[in-house]
Amino acid sequence: MASVFAGIYARGAAAGAVSGGAWLGAMLEAEAALARACARAGQMPVPAAEAIAAACREEELDPHELSREAAEHTSPVVPLVQALRARVGPDLARYVHLGATSQDILDTAAMLVSHRACGAILTDARTAARAAARLAEEHRETVMAGRTLLQHALPISFGLRAAGWMVGVDTATRRLAGVRERELVVQMGGPVGSREPAIAAAVASELGLAAPVIPWDTMRVPIGSLASAVGVLAGALAKVARDVTLLAQSEVGELREGASGRGRSTAMAHKRNPVAAISVLACARRVPGLVATLLGAMEQELERAAGAWQAEWGTLSDLLALGGSAASWTRDLLEHLEVEPDRMRANLTRLAKAGVTEAADPRAHLGGASELIDRALAAHRS
Amino acid sequence: MASVFAGIYARGAAAGAVSGGAWLGAMLEAEAALARACARAGQMPVPAAEAIAAACREEELDPHELSREAAEHTSPVVPLVQALRARVGPDLARYVHLGATSQDILDTAAMLVSHRACGAILTDARTAARAAARLAEEHRETVMAGRTLLQHALPISFGLRAAGWMVGVDTATRRLAGVRERELVVQMGGPVGSREPAIAAAVASELGLAAPVIPWDTMRVPIGSLASAVGVLAGALAKVARDVTLLAQSEVGELREGASGRGRSTAMAHKRNPVAAISVLACARRVPGLVATLLGAMEQELERAAGAWQAEWGTLSDLLALGGSAASWTRDLLEHLEVEPDRMRANLTRLAKAGVTEAADPRAHLGGASELIDRALAAHRS
Amino acid sequence: MASVFAGIYARGAAAGAVSGGAWLGAMLEAEAALARACARAGQMPVPAAEAIAAACREEELDPHELSREAAEHTSPVVPLVQALRARVGPDLARYVHLGATSQDILDTAAMLVSHRACGAILTDARTAARAAARLAEEHRETVMAGRTLLQHALPISFGLRAAGWMVGVDTATRRLAGVRERELVVQMGGPVGSREPAIAAAVASELGLAAPVIPWDTMRVPIGSLASAVGVLAGALAKVARDVTLLAQSEVGELREGASGRGRSTAMAHKRNPVAAISVLACARRVPGLVATLLGAMEQELERAAGAWQAEWGTLSDLLALGGSAASWTRDLLEHLEVEPDRMRANLTRLAKAGVTEAADPRAHLGGASELIDRALAAHRS
Amino acid sequence: MASVFAGIYARGAAAGAVSGGAWLGAMLEAEAALARACARAGQMPVPAAEAIAAACREEELDPHELSREAAEHTSPVVPLVQALRARVGPDLARYVHLGATSQDILDTAAMLVSHRACGAILTDARTAARAAARLAEEHRETVMAGRTLLQHALPISFGLRAAGWMVGVDTATRRLAGVRERELVVQMGGPVGSREPAIAAAVASELGLAAPVIPWDTMRVPIGSLASAVGVLAGALAKVARDVTLLAQSEVGELREGASGRGRSTAMAHKRNPVAAISVLACARRVPGLVATLLGAMEQELERAAGAWQAEWGTLSDLLALGGSAASWTRDLLEHLEVEPDRMRANLTRLAKAGVTEAADPRAHLGGASELIDRALAAHRS
Repeated sequence: MASVFAGIYARGAAAGAVSGGAWLGAMLEAEAALARACARAGQMPVPAAEAIAAACREEELDPHELSREAAEHTSPVVPLVQALRARVGPDLARYVHLGATSQDILDTAAMLVSHRACGAILTDARTAARAAARLAEEHRETVMAGRTLLQHALPISFGLRAAGWMVGVDTATRRLAGVRERELVVQMGGPVGSREPAIAAAVASELGLAAPVIPWDTMRVPIGSLASAVGVLAGALAKVARDVTLLAQSEVGELREGASGRGRSTAMAHKRNPVAAISVLACARRVPGLVATLLGAMEQELERAAGAWQAEWGTLSDLLALGGSAASWTRDLLEHLEVEPDRMRANLTRLAKAGVTEAADPRAHLGGASELIDRALAAHRS
Repeated sequence: MASVFAGIYARGAAAGAVSGGAWLGAMLEAEAALARACARAGQMPVPAAEAIAAACREEELDPHELSREAAEHTSPVVPLVQALRARVGPDLARYVHLGATSQDILDTAAMLVSHRACGAILTDARTAARAAARLAEEHRETVMAGRTLLQHALPISFGLRAAGWMVGVDTATRRLAGVRERELVVQMGGPVGSREPAIAAAVASELGLAAPVIPWDTMRVPIGSLASAVGVLAGALAKVARDVTLLAQSEVGELREGASGRGRSTAMAHKRNPVAAISVLACARRVPGLVATLLGAMEQELERAAGAWQAEWGTLSDLLALGGSAASWTRDLLEHLEVEPDRMRANLTRLAKAGVTEAADPRAHLGGASELIDRALAAHRS
Repeated sequence: MASVFAGIYARGAAAGAVSGGAWLGAMLEAEAALARACARAGQMPVPAAEAIAAACREEELDPHELSREAAEHTSPVVPLVQALRARVGPDLARYVHLGATSQDILDTAAMLVSHRACGAILTDARTAARAAARLAEEHRETVMAGRTLLQHALPISFGLRAAGWMVGVDTATRRLAGVRERELVVQMGGPVGSREPAIAAAVASELGLAAPVIPWDTMRVPIGSLASAVGVLAGALAKVARDVTLLAQSEVGELREGASGRGRSTAMAHKRNPVAAISVLACARRVPGLVATLLGAMEQELERAAGAWQAEWGTLSDLLALGGSAASWTRDLLEHLEVEPDRMRANLTRLAKAGVTEAADPRAHLGGASELIDRALAAHRS
Repeated sequence: MASVFAGIYARGAAAGAVSGGAWLGAMLEAEAALARACARAGQMPVPAAEAIAAACREEELDPHELSREAAEHTSPVVPLVQALRARVGPDLARYVHLGATSQDILDTAAMLVSHRACGAILTDARTAARAAARLAEEHRETVMAGRTLLQHALPISFGLRAAGWMVGVDTATRRLAGVRERELVVQMGGPVGSREPAIAAAVASELGLAAPVIPWDTMRVPIGSLASAVGVLAGALAKVARDVTLLAQSEVGELREGASGRGRSTAMAHKRNPVAAISVLACARRVPGLVATLLGAMEQELERAAGAWQAEWGTLSDLLALGGSAASWTRDLLEHLEVEPDRMRANLTRLAKAGVTEAADPRAHLGGASELIDRALAAHRS
């Protein structure tokens, strides 16, 4: 990701969780967990496992060197294992990566970086939802024009709009949390997926991940589920951001981004650009194409795919970084959003003048808004 | 969808569940359910509701006429309501579509057609998984070459490969079933989403759908969830089909499609084309782009979107039809799959000759395959 | 495509050009052209070719029957050839489909339906560009607020905005016209792509298509080029439509759709919905996912793909229909667009009040607008 | 892009041409070219322009600092201009970025990095095509089994297969070269797109890019054209790589990757993995989703888009890097491809045994293969 744009695309902690260093660290953790699992199963001496785990904690590996070697094997695990074997010395070398294949390590590392990146995404998304909840509560009776097909419709309460944002973000967040908890399963099937399940279970327990029913090698449901849960969340965040850009338009003026100093125009002093909302959209718009790539890459050949598997790594990294950045920007957006109730009322007056009788006494026409906000807040808190 | 290709793209019952007629019927059911819900809530006389429901059962509406009128309003609901009002006569006309907006009816209809289409998809996917379970059971000890990166690797059991298919299809099927049961929520928010929730709850109960926390108008999490669950299932099915095409290659010859008469070549008598597997792939490859379109369309404006909402209808229809066709073809594929254990063994011999010692005594190297198959079958049956 | 939505998704002539009947007709034309080409090359008697061509003109084939049979062979050509052979009788049967393979007929038919659909798309897109040219000419000095990031920026002329639309549509239209003329190449390579080029050249000449350098069987550059040219055009049309929806907002009110009667709201009499613009967006938003599917389907195996090829037919049909509908709606939109110069000036006054000095004397700040419009119109007419 | 995977995803020179540093450099070049163009047009003194150009050559800017500031303005140009103004001192500061807006600099920089990245892509793609030409020439009479739907079909010559690769890569390469030459147009329209065209023309001439008819601000045809041309090329490269993976299968063994040492398996000594082909596929599979993102981002609002524009930068960078890596890997693949004519003949014998009479005397059945190869080579050299 070109670094001059990182401030936009890589806000929040998810991007760091999928960096080259994070992947490398996760592969080392997978090797360490494997060694301990083998020791637990009596497949290697405990001291050997501890020596390997210690070697996995050293920080001297050069990701660029690995990358170059990785290109010779379509996988960075090959040079990683060579380096670890050199570190532990000839007596223990045979215990490194015992019974495993590159895909075991890479897939388990993918689950580990995803677990961490999703943790960051969820923290920001939940904070964003709480900020929306506050807006819903505070603006329960703040009337404004509803707008359908970008035309004035009947009055609504801004609190109800905010409640809609909250419910959407909450629902998508819970889905992602469920995937994170139950569907990020380690891979530990050995060269052709037939390794006994006890090793996978032990590795899962070491790493705080879930264990698979059986090795999932080329059946990429976990990747597809993860990708689409991030995709749905990004879509929910984009909806919030789109609304803010529209309600912040010069002619509308009902919302403003409040974070100080941000969004001043270079050329025009009167402008205050909705920077956070724009950044949410910039990130979120990049997501559906990445989800499609990962869904398309589920068509994997036999015991290891030739191309589709290798296409996942960068795509998944970008997806998690962008989903995380969208969540972080949305949190920032909603925590500092400035609402202009006077402007909302003034715009409604225009609607009343246009002959929409409901706009003359908008509170009488809010329907079940308050009850709906209560229901939404109750669901949010549950 | 061009009808000469319907045999490939529209196999099974899902396509019919999203046809123009099915959408029209679903919109009428939504209007009928609305009338009954209003009557239950005391908002209209029960006989009015029954008269409307009766009018909704008539089959005289012309979809082409509706389509033409729909284009004048970006929605087929406008002419539908006009037609219903004309049917019930001037006294009852005001009760038709009471308190509703076009989006209520269309979104509820979308959920209804999706519910039915998913029912068809699930039936075929579950049957496919059962066929895979039989293969796993029967071929527990059928040895064959594992293939990684399309190169021979260590021996595996074909039963384990089939178990992998089964687990993937099962997992994706359960996800879709969960979405179908809990996330296909009616829409009944009125013109700007503020209608009291009791009406939505009653409509949901009439139609056998779920009720939303609050109206979800432009917060399209249900659509995104549904689309991605179909997308993940299609990916799992594509994996099965890709394996079959590879194992059915002339040089490999380990699997054959068994449905009689199908797949004979026009030009070459010796060929037996893997027609079902190819059709699965033809359908499944069209899915990720449709999922991306629906995720991208989650960015919807304010109280009703100008474009993104209207983009959903055809996309969702195609997605469900193609997902359903992929499931139906996979069922057909797995129910009639012919396995060639002799050929599998012969191919392994070649591997043994190449110096892979494990290939000489493959059963000794199946590792935990049998235990894994048992675990997988237990999970399948649970 | 669900027919209740056809008014939105299938406006204009392109949809008809990719219907099931149109595909069937195109396959018959390809068979007829092949027969004549073979006769020209001395490979069959001229009367045989004429008898086959006559049989290809008959309209009795049932697309649903063909579709069913097609599913048995992953191609509708097999039953089509059987039907033609039955029609011409046992003596001539061997001349039907002489030396050809199903893919020859289907790919050539795909080029033929694409050629026709693109003709329809181009007619509507060019008419839309001409309507934009008129707006550019007429509103050369109509001042309005420029808006960047949806915030008021400096004044512009509406004519320049319209000229921008025109140039974009013109450029994308010329690209598509170039593809239509030079890259829609017949396929006539025989079972494995090695047929002599004279037959392809003669078929191309019969059908008014281009001839390939060599058969392109699984090298799908023509499909990729076509798809992306339609994709770029749809993107240009979407930009026009997005601008109209924004400038037609209740608070902005600078543009209105003018086609009489259209877009009245069911629930709210004061609304006038931008129906054409919304329909453009509904169609255009479905396009990028379809382009991605076709680009992804370029990865085709050896001499005929197992899945990716069969995925093209429906995708290409939908893409052309939607591109055509977007073009037809844009034409309608621009031909009837109502411009409100008074409202444009009034909105600028607000900007002047906000302290933007340029807004007080907007004409002095139009910069090179008039010169730019002249350049754009000159390029349009060239 | 996670650096441990850079060896796969970022091979060749294109990735460097879209790095953060390259973007920063291109923005500085755009500012320098603007200053000189203004001087040429008499809008600033020549010494001022030279001072600015000199300041733009300094290498002290910190991309991470810029990135952080960029996030406050949705653009890295704002802090860049501030830095340049500080460098040239208070007397000349007003000449920096004269009459320009951030989008002018960013879009022009985008065209510049694209021009350079495409240069790298084209060099590798053309070299790959030349390698395919050599294979076509050398293996004109090397017979092998054609394979349709992954089943044996009639014999072909491997030279014809290679010629098909060559023609596809050539055609896609020429399309991309045409876009690079004619459609990568500078942006220099000022805050709302109305700047006189002479400045854009002068900037274009300074930078070796094309000049637009009028500023294209939110009409993103150049981006769409560029993206789709890269997409089509990546599709053509993927076809080559897919064929190699299939023909290199253990059971087929007709092709092998020849680059020494690469692709040895960690676990299994007999394997020789098709590393380059897999890497081509890994890169190419990530491309269609990125193209779709850029086509979808053509829907841009009014004078500057809120989200869609900002989504382009990272997407375009990834697309060019991946397209370039795919081209570089394909070149490597084809330059070192090892062909096994004996194995090809042996596989044909199996076909003959299966009763395909053509396989018994394959040369008699190559049809127009040799003539087709000549045509293809002539087109390649023209």
